[in-house]
Amino acid sequence: MSNGTNYSKKLIATSDFRISDFPTDITDEVTQEEAEIRLKEVRKKLSTLQDTMYAHDKYNVLVCLQGMDTAGKDSLIREVFAKFNVRGVDVQSFKTPTIKEHQHDYLWRHYIALPEKGKFGVFNRTHYENVLVTRVHPEYLLAENIPEIKNIEDVTPDFWKKRLDQINNFEQHLVENGTIVFKFYLHLSKGEQKNRLLRRLEKDKHQWKFSPGDLAERELWDKYMTCYEEAIQKTSKKKTPWYIIPSDNKEVARYLVASIMHEVLKKYKDIQYPELSDEIKRHMQTYKNQLENE
Amino acid sequence: MSNGTNYSKKLIATSDFRISDFPTDITDEVTQEEAEIRLKEVRKKLSTLQDTMYAHDKYNVLVCLQGMDTAGKDSLIREVFAKFNVRGVDVQSFKTPTIKEHQHDYLWRHYIALPEKGKFGVFNRTHYENVLVTRVHPEYLLAENIPEIKNIEDVTPDFWKKRLDQINNFEQHLVENGTIVFKFYLHLSKGEQKNRLLRRLEKDKHQWKFSPGDLAERELWDKYMTCYEEAIQKTSKKKTPWYIIPSDNKEVARYLVASIMHEVLKKYKDIQYPELSDEIKRHMQTYKNQLENE
Repeated sequence: MSNGTNYSKKLIATSDFRISDFPTDITDEVTQEEAEIRLKEVRKKLSTLQDTMYAHDKYNVLVCLQGMDTAGKDSLIREVFAKFNVRGVDVQSFKTPTIKEHQHDYLWRHYIALPEKGKFGVFNRTHYENVLVTRVHPEYLLAENIPEIKNIEDVTPDFWKKRLDQINNFEQHLVENGTIVFKFYLHLSKGEQKNRLLRRLEKDKHQWKFSPGDLAERELWDKYMTCYEEAIQKTSKKKTPWYIIPSDNKEVARYLVASIMHEVLKKYKDIQYPELSDEIKRHMQTYKNQLENE
Repeated sequence: MSNGTNYSKKLIATSDFRISDFPTDITDEVTQEEAEIRLKEVRKKLSTLQDTMYAHDKYNVLVCLQGMDTAGKDSLIREVFAKFNVRGVDVQSFKTPTIKEHQHDYLWRHYIALPEKGKFGVFNRTHYENVLVTRVHPEYLLAENIPEIKNIEDVTPDFWKKRLDQINNFEQHLVENGTIVFKFYLHLSKGEQKNRLLRRLEKDKHQWKFSPGDLAERELWDKYMTCYEEAIQKTSKKKTPWYIIPSDNKEVARYLVASIMHEVLKKYKDIQYPELSDEIKRHMQTYKNQLENE
């Protein structure tokens, strides 16, 4: 992969996306050392861009992160947004829905967590969990009190198709109203997950993150891959594409995510510092005099 | 002021606090250059501490920032939290209350904006605006639909006393339930505000922040000082003290705020990475074997 990048084209998923066609490791094209150096450059540019976007106050950015356990979502957030003004980034981690959240439809808690104008919102796990973990464990749906779902047997393939359509509509609505949407799938190999889980068990400062449930979910790896594949195929659209990020190397993954965001955002030439109103401009000298002659 | 710091004692406001007794500039004791160097050290330490606090997940930190317009709240947030993991900081800027917010009591919007366990919440302007801007402009109260306030004449000194008591009770409740509260008053001189407003009018990237209202509020300077003084006197308590930050030099102000946070937080010796449960510890080897023998 050349220095000129263009990852926002190269790593995009199309409607015939096959998860097994995409690499989990591209360190032969961009090494860890290169990635570390380039990330530092890109995140400075992103930070400047964020400052302008905050002042401009018309667009907001939604960054959706999905990936299997240990794919590196948390540390990616820490590193990619390291140079941002904390005021302008809002990170939302979605865990098991609460009873109150289940009293609403599945998109509600994501909707109310969307970033304000001028800000970046990061969804650490996203509304896609509703067609991923929920699809792997359809019994979870029963807690959602959906009128037509009385038993697991009521959950047909058509149900998931409809849900994916709803997600597309939701995202299209966001885009039409000024949200710039990024969706990153952190693509990790099963072998690398094993290494990371073993490290989690061994390192003192990381042990607390371990739960026996991690191993149970790992056994469902293939089911997850099938669900990811279909979800990405059906929801990777022109304005809301999925990017498939090789994630066996964390530094490379972080660089790719930052790089794609920068490639896309720099095209929004209309994002500029706002101008003062003509009214205020006309009186500028009066204001200055008022202050100076107090 | 010595290198050993101890600003968390030196800059604290007591119940006989007089705003005019506190300096707005201490660059003769700590220079801008010293402040810049020391801030870099302190914010690294704060960042490590934040990481542990996030894992520990029992305390949260509320950082309240108040100060006159141009006191430097925004840039202070950017610099003090520059090394934090964005995941762990939640910045809330409170502007004019909305109609929906006015359908609740004045603390409601602040309550629902409190940080989660393990996180830092920064209030950029705070619930204190309800005894500051609202006290300077008592007509604002009429929008709050308070039963006993029908006209401005109904707003007695006792009303403000009661409100300050309510704020004390609110903060005491937070402290008793695991919130560590910091309250910083960014103490700016009227002369330095003039310089900053003039710069705001002159600098291209800053002009958009200007509003003619800034000048109108400046004319109410003395009224604001009286309200700040009483609010700070009445609400600077042992567990929820106010710190009076000399803010005519922005770099010094940032260093002092970071330094005080660090001095106080490092005393919480119980903030540690959580241990695995005995149940999980007992089965540790089984988990490792399961992964290794897949």
